[in-house]
Amino acid sequence: MFPSTITSDLEKPFSPDGRADMIRVGVIGYGYWGPNIVRNLHGLDNTRVEMVCDKSPAALAHARKSYPGLATTSDPCEVLRSPQIDAVAVITPVWTHYELAKAALENGKHVFVEKPFTSSAVQAEELIELAARKKLTIMVDHTFLFTGAVRKIRELVDRGDLGDLYYYDSLRVNLGLFQHDVSVIWDLAPHDLSIMDHLIRKEPEAIVATGEKHLNGVEDVAFMTIYFPQNVIAHINVNWLSPVKIRTTLIGGQKKMLVWNDLVADEKVRVYDKGVQISAGEGIRDLLVSYRTGDMWAPQIEQTEALRVELGYFVDCIMNNKMPFNDGHAGLRVVRMLEAAECSIQKRGELIRL
Amino acid sequence: MFPSTITSDLEKPFSPDGRADMIRVGVIGYGYWGPNIVRNLHGLDNTRVEMVCDKSPAALAHARKSYPGLATTSDPCEVLRSPQIDAVAVITPVWTHYELAKAALENGKHVFVEKPFTSSAVQAEELIELAARKKLTIMVDHTFLFTGAVRKIRELVDRGDLGDLYYYDSLRVNLGLFQHDVSVIWDLAPHDLSIMDHLIRKEPEAIVATGEKHLNGVEDVAFMTIYFPQNVIAHINVNWLSPVKIRTTLIGGQKKMLVWNDLVADEKVRVYDKGVQISAGEGIRDLLVSYRTGDMWAPQIEQTEALRVELGYFVDCIMNNKMPFNDGHAGLRVVRMLEAAECSIQKRGELIRL
Amino acid sequence: MFPSTITSDLEKPFSPDGRADMIRVGVIGYGYWGPNIVRNLHGLDNTRVEMVCDKSPAALAHARKSYPGLATTSDPCEVLRSPQIDAVAVITPVWTHYELAKAALENGKHVFVEKPFTSSAVQAEELIELAARKKLTIMVDHTFLFTGAVRKIRELVDRGDLGDLYYYDSLRVNLGLFQHDVSVIWDLAPHDLSIMDHLIRKEPEAIVATGEKHLNGVEDVAFMTIYFPQNVIAHINVNWLSPVKIRTTLIGGQKKMLVWNDLVADEKVRVYDKGVQISAGEGIRDLLVSYRTGDMWAPQIEQTEALRVELGYFVDCIMNNKMPFNDGHAGLRVVRMLEAAECSIQKRGELIRL
Amino acid sequence: MFPSTITSDLEKPFSPDGRADMIRVGVIGYGYWGPNIVRNLHGLDNTRVEMVCDKSPAALAHARKSYPGLATTSDPCEVLRSPQIDAVAVITPVWTHYELAKAALENGKHVFVEKPFTSSAVQAEELIELAARKKLTIMVDHTFLFTGAVRKIRELVDRGDLGDLYYYDSLRVNLGLFQHDVSVIWDLAPHDLSIMDHLIRKEPEAIVATGEKHLNGVEDVAFMTIYFPQNVIAHINVNWLSPVKIRTTLIGGQKKMLVWNDLVADEKVRVYDKGVQISAGEGIRDLLVSYRTGDMWAPQIEQTEALRVELGYFVDCIMNNKMPFNDGHAGLRVVRMLEAAECSIQKRGELIRL
Repeated sequence: MFPSTITSDLEKPFSPDGRADMIRVGVIGYGYWGPNIVRNLHGLDNTRVEMVCDKSPAALAHARKSYPGLATTSDPCEVLRSPQIDAVAVITPVWTHYELAKAALENGKHVFVEKPFTSSAVQAEELIELAARKKLTIMVDHTFLFTGAVRKIRELVDRGDLGDLYYYDSLRVNLGLFQHDVSVIWDLAPHDLSIMDHLIRKEPEAIVATGEKHLNGVEDVAFMTIYFPQNVIAHINVNWLSPVKIRTTLIGGQKKMLVWNDLVADEKVRVYDKGVQISAGEGIRDLLVSYRTGDMWAPQIEQTEALRVELGYFVDCIMNNKMPFNDGHAGLRVVRMLEAAECSIQKRGELIRL
Repeated sequence: MFPSTITSDLEKPFSPDGRADMIRVGVIGYGYWGPNIVRNLHGLDNTRVEMVCDKSPAALAHARKSYPGLATTSDPCEVLRSPQIDAVAVITPVWTHYELAKAALENGKHVFVEKPFTSSAVQAEELIELAARKKLTIMVDHTFLFTGAVRKIRELVDRGDLGDLYYYDSLRVNLGLFQHDVSVIWDLAPHDLSIMDHLIRKEPEAIVATGEKHLNGVEDVAFMTIYFPQNVIAHINVNWLSPVKIRTTLIGGQKKMLVWNDLVADEKVRVYDKGVQISAGEGIRDLLVSYRTGDMWAPQIEQTEALRVELGYFVDCIMNNKMPFNDGHAGLRVVRMLEAAECSIQKRGELIRL
Repeated sequence: MFPSTITSDLEKPFSPDGRADMIRVGVIGYGYWGPNIVRNLHGLDNTRVEMVCDKSPAALAHARKSYPGLATTSDPCEVLRSPQIDAVAVITPVWTHYELAKAALENGKHVFVEKPFTSSAVQAEELIELAARKKLTIMVDHTFLFTGAVRKIRELVDRGDLGDLYYYDSLRVNLGLFQHDVSVIWDLAPHDLSIMDHLIRKEPEAIVATGEKHLNGVEDVAFMTIYFPQNVIAHINVNWLSPVKIRTTLIGGQKKMLVWNDLVADEKVRVYDKGVQISAGEGIRDLLVSYRTGDMWAPQIEQTEALRVELGYFVDCIMNNKMPFNDGHAGLRVVRMLEAAECSIQKRGELIRL
Repeated sequence: MFPSTITSDLEKPFSPDGRADMIRVGVIGYGYWGPNIVRNLHGLDNTRVEMVCDKSPAALAHARKSYPGLATTSDPCEVLRSPQIDAVAVITPVWTHYELAKAALENGKHVFVEKPFTSSAVQAEELIELAARKKLTIMVDHTFLFTGAVRKIRELVDRGDLGDLYYYDSLRVNLGLFQHDVSVIWDLAPHDLSIMDHLIRKEPEAIVATGEKHLNGVEDVAFMTIYFPQNVIAHINVNWLSPVKIRTTLIGGQKKMLVWNDLVADEKVRVYDKGVQISAGEGIRDLLVSYRTGDMWAPQIEQTEALRVELGYFVDCIMNNKMPFNDGHAGLRVVRMLEAAECSIQKRGELIRL
């Protein structure tokens, strides 16, 4: 239901039954990702960027140059307390998410929070509880869920095309070491964990993580295995020290298997009519193996910018009192897995139950 | 020293100082891999295939059709005891390696054994001891070590081009479930473990392995992390349920990084002049990160068939009383890691010290 | 009808109504391609390689080593006149085809001739007439027509999946200069011309060819355009001086378009549900353009060795008095285009009508 | 000298010796490409976009939204006659170039003209003469010459790394039919012709072109061969009806060969240490062929946006009275080849001398 919902709802005129017909957003953080948030909010019909906040005067000058007339401030409180603002987008480093989101919620504002949601599960739980109490919306920016590729894969999974899932295996590596105080797991794996969570839709049972530090005291290479019920297994390989950029995910199901290569322009998702079946033979050792190899099929993928779809969905959820699927709970599930992975990696692969 | 040695020695005329000028080989096992062994032995000047043994009459008929006049038998003892045979190639399932190799050594024959060497480290140790006592040569068929690609990578590592190694990360997946009683680890990982062992040349400290069974009671998807001293880490991803075949290894070093894609016809090894350096800044959190990105270079790779080079090296080692680098000890190191991985996977990722 | 015919006929038992149940073949030429001919004939049930002829004693020694007991000769007449031989395979340089095929036909033997059929259209016409008179079969070795890829493309064309054809555009380049006295056109283009002829199935109207000589007095780089009725156009780019090997053909149709990349292991043929449609608008300049972009689909391709299928078809045609589709006329059509291209290239692109 | 010149000059402070320290530009045409021109001019220090002109009110509204305060007009004369404007960028359909550029020059303004320069060589010659008389600068927007890839290839050619050139072969195909009144040659080939002209730096002797019309009365598929002195040959394949987008150029030289794939993110230019050499043997037919295959090398390519470098160079040429290498003469050379190709294609490949 998800993709059709998003798309169709975005088209709908908003009925004038007392609901707001314009959402005014304050954006805190205008560094690497903030400008994309502002640009996409700017492009939505029923939304206005009311104010942008950043500590850097240069960032604010850049924002004003791009959007003349835009109010800017270096004080987050101006955004958090403004009566002109309905929702706050928190696009800052992870260690600030909890405090800023909490203040926003306490001031009665909906929040859109950059991933990962918070630095700890405890913080995430508190924010979820607070938002529920205040009847406010939390959306965690799991942008990839809104790409054409993930929406198509989810559709294939939901339709049963792949059959029962066997495994989810993702490789996300490149040369880059942007973070000083979080490891490659907290930097890159939230993407994979949120996608995995969205596609597998089972509660993970346990995590094993390994990795190594080579440069600045945090892991720059890491590997995670996530165990799910019914023999479903996920594996995530993240690496800041790869000479080449790779973004490839293999998903194996009982009926079909697919490869998602996010770096190619066309045919990002390739579905293979391939599989293996085992049946018992006569003797005790006689397993009959039959392979099936057939055509490959690359469905057309929608090209709309994911962040635009997501922010439109955020505004729609606020206006229509809908619970987003990438809500605080989705954010919490990812943070719990990050915590478990961090714990496991410190203990060199010890199984951490979730 | 390895590549030059092999190549130059193969060219040398054999001096007539009492050493055999012809090695007579008996081959046990003529299934999938055996015909390649026979064909390559057949192409060597100073070697004769004396007899081929297999339980299958069809396999033997096929052998005789390809090599008219070749002696064949269904009884391994005929090979193991023949006074006309100097060396035995054991190209049979792994559970038979120990018994056949032991009998060959006891009968005074050198042995070439298919990988993995044995089913257990204890067996491997016993064979090594026996061969040492009898002054016989054991070579384990780690064929990949003789490919142009691995020889070139080893050369780059030895020359210090990559600098200190950071990680070794290999992906070996395809659709295939050939084995009924060994898992994907015993089937595919010996390749990666032997290459890793050959390139890293450090003693591994511990292994963490995870995986899952979906079809016939053995793992068909598995992931291994191997910890080495000095923060070197290796990771191996093997999978029988992938819709696409991938054979890609990333190797990261302090100076350079490389990608080895074994499935492309040309430019299998790509060396990247890329890296990251961290230096301390003034404040406590101020790490200065500098990236280096430069040219990519794909050295020409020698095309000779790896198995031919390896078998020539086997015969050369016997004739000249040389210890092969892929000897019983190399085979034992791989078997120890396979045992540890199997143990770890049963315990869902428990760290197994080596 | 073609693919099913070949396949099913090969399976049929041969009825005992007076027809030969064994075809005895003599092979003239055992250089680069001859061994493949002999190996595949050897693998056919109802065929026997009776004799192999080559001028090189080394080639014959090699043949005898591979097929002990095989009769060999350095004198073509022994093959051409032998009463034990039903059919002759002429696997020699092109300038010898006419003479050898003519002698074979005159001696009552069917002929399988390497491509290109002959050095001139006149020669080809004479051989066709002779074979018709003698009721003998000529097959020209247009091997590519028997690959799984071309068979699948032909099937798509025949079924109308592509709609009316717009163009056929082939790129066949690599580093290689094997021929001293024929240009890159006579060396490489016969492949493309025979495939094009097989797929387009219209009479070409005219040819324009350009090219250049850089090394040994024959064109090493050449480009051909072939005009067909109804605006169908074909283009062939052949080059001996390319640093990379490329074998890619684009085929555009009114309904669908496809890309055939012969160098990839899987998904050689990719069919795109893409197109453009033009309709007249209101004003004189108002053409309404509508694009259609949809899924991509890579049908599974049969893997059987093309040469084996072709030789089985040759034997089947002889036994069952069938006219092969790659007969002398097909060979003649290709030779006519080669002659026209050569003529055009000498005149720097002058249009040569066919 | 070119790449260093551009780069270093862009860095230099402009000396205050009477020359303008600010170039004020009027931009005519704000459709597909115009916004990129304005954005890049906007980013230059010593440049101001004074006014934007377009017939479409929507385009102008879009411009004002992006650049609040920007003067806009629907009347080109306002730009052409404004005393506040030093230079005019003509970013309109080709049939309007001549008239607009002529008016701009007559009004004493430098001009930057979209490619192709004009609709005919006669027009181009007139503009060149007019600019020379008025001492004004003409730059034709051959953007590709300012990409990192072409700058690197030019550097390799200039340094003699490739040796004498053998051929230039470019493939530029995709699905797209944007133009109603110009063929695929006038639409796509100006890119290839300007790059070829920039790299080969010889006067072409003659052109042969072929092609076909399938949809709207202009060629949608076309092939050009350009003959140069000393056996250098160029070939250009342009196609609006390809299901896949390809932008690949092969360049063969006596010493080295390269492949430029403009669609990959990294390693766009690959240089191959490969070649063929022919020497005379003893007999008349004995040509000794020797192949050389060595490493592949992908030099790092500068990433700066080409249009930014080009526009900076335009402003620099105006300020410092320098003649750009992509001046009216460069534009004329390309237009002459387009005219010749069009003439040749009408006559089905007739050789047109230049």
